[in-house]
Amino acid sequence: MNLPKAIRNLAEAFERLPGIGPKTATRLSYYLLQAPETEAKKFAQALEELKENTKICSVCRNIDEADPCSICTDSSRDTSVICVVERPTDILALEKSGKYRGLYHVLGGVISPLNSIGPEELYIDGLVERLASSVKRREEENPKSLNANRYPLIAVREVVLATNASLEGEATAMYLSKLLKSAYPNLRVTRIGRGLPVGADLEYADDVTLTRAMEGRQEY
Amino acid sequence: MNLPKAIRNLAEAFERLPGIGPKTATRLSYYLLQAPETEAKKFAQALEELKENTKICSVCRNIDEADPCSICTDSSRDTSVICVVERPTDILALEKSGKYRGLYHVLGGVISPLNSIGPEELYIDGLVERLASSVKRREEENPKSLNANRYPLIAVREVVLATNASLEGEATAMYLSKLLKSAYPNLRVTRIGRGLPVGADLEYADDVTLTRAMEGRQEY
Repeated sequence: MNLPKAIRNLAEAFERLPGIGPKTATRLSYYLLQAPETEAKKFAQALEELKENTKICSVCRNIDEADPCSICTDSSRDTSVICVVERPTDILALEKSGKYRGLYHVLGGVISPLNSIGPEELYIDGLVERLASSVKRREEENPKSLNANRYPLIAVREVVLATNASLEGEATAMYLSKLLKSAYPNLRVTRIGRGLPVGADLEYADDVTLTRAMEGRQEY
Repeated sequence: MNLPKAIRNLAEAFERLPGIGPKTATRLSYYLLQAPETEAKKFAQALEELKENTKICSVCRNIDEADPCSICTDSSRDTSVICVVERPTDILALEKSGKYRGLYHVLGGVISPLNSIGPEELYIDGLVERLASSVKRREEENPKSLNANRYPLIAVREVVLATNASLEGEATAMYLSKLLKSAYPNLRVTRIGRGLPVGADLEYADDVTLTRAMEGRQEY
């Protein structure tokens, strides 16, 4: 027995989503079939309005309702720190923790030779430009201090590299670190801390995590 | 930071689906945001056409493109057996196994006092009616044989109770078995086999499964 075409179409749409297999896709389609009709309608409307009502921030490539985004225009935030992340969803996770009050920069991925993604595919120019314009702003404000210093002074004090702790994430962080440090020797370039996640058992942690945890040990 | 409204709306729609939590809902919404726009559009279209292009079979309550459904109208199928299932998706699973060639009957749920679902909420009348009309058809075709027999003869020889092996599924099967046997003593009422699933270890099977497996042992 073949699935009715309308159900098959919806199941195929669900299946294209990451992490949803054919069985779940069919189950979800049947669920919507027996749910009140308004539910499927609301769903369809939300899908149609998705791209119309969102904007990509031209400064940091975050996704928001306005351009520049609400973080870039928030005057209460610390504009001297930029946290570099892979995806807009990483911003959500960091914002939820509430610890970080600086700005962000979304790369839009990681360097991955296997998937033929090089540095030029990522939004690295944007980061370099942000740093350059921050230098220029500083020069205009205080032309004397520039002459007093061998290295360009920039308003951005620190760049936190918060790509994932995966192989590609580490390689991208390494690449960016070298690039930024050579251009701005005064800039503090940091990598987000790696080690045991909360609640983890030392006994079951893998070697690389333990190595990172040892390397990242701090005064207590 | 709040999610942009368009993303929040879509995430809420995803979250209403069974088995999708807030994190997955957000992830899926962001995925659709970065996917080609046609994907979200196709998805929306499939949702809108879902209820318009599907019908509930008036005979067996299966969901299909036509009413009666393709199984009820399939002349190659064995009309003397009716398999009673909880949901239309159960029909898909049984059809996929390819073993069963009879008809189906969808109850639309199970008896569940905790959720205040009694037998009257299920499509049991429909099953009783199908059996009754099958008797009537037989009477018209062969009035003599009826007189020769104490019990009404029906064209449907067997009803397979294929509700889930859950507490409610078993209770519903028990209820239907009593109901059908008292109305049609000549009818064969069977319950789908229960025991060890393929690939299972006896050692790790639970007590009830082992009890059922023992009860359901067969000549080998």
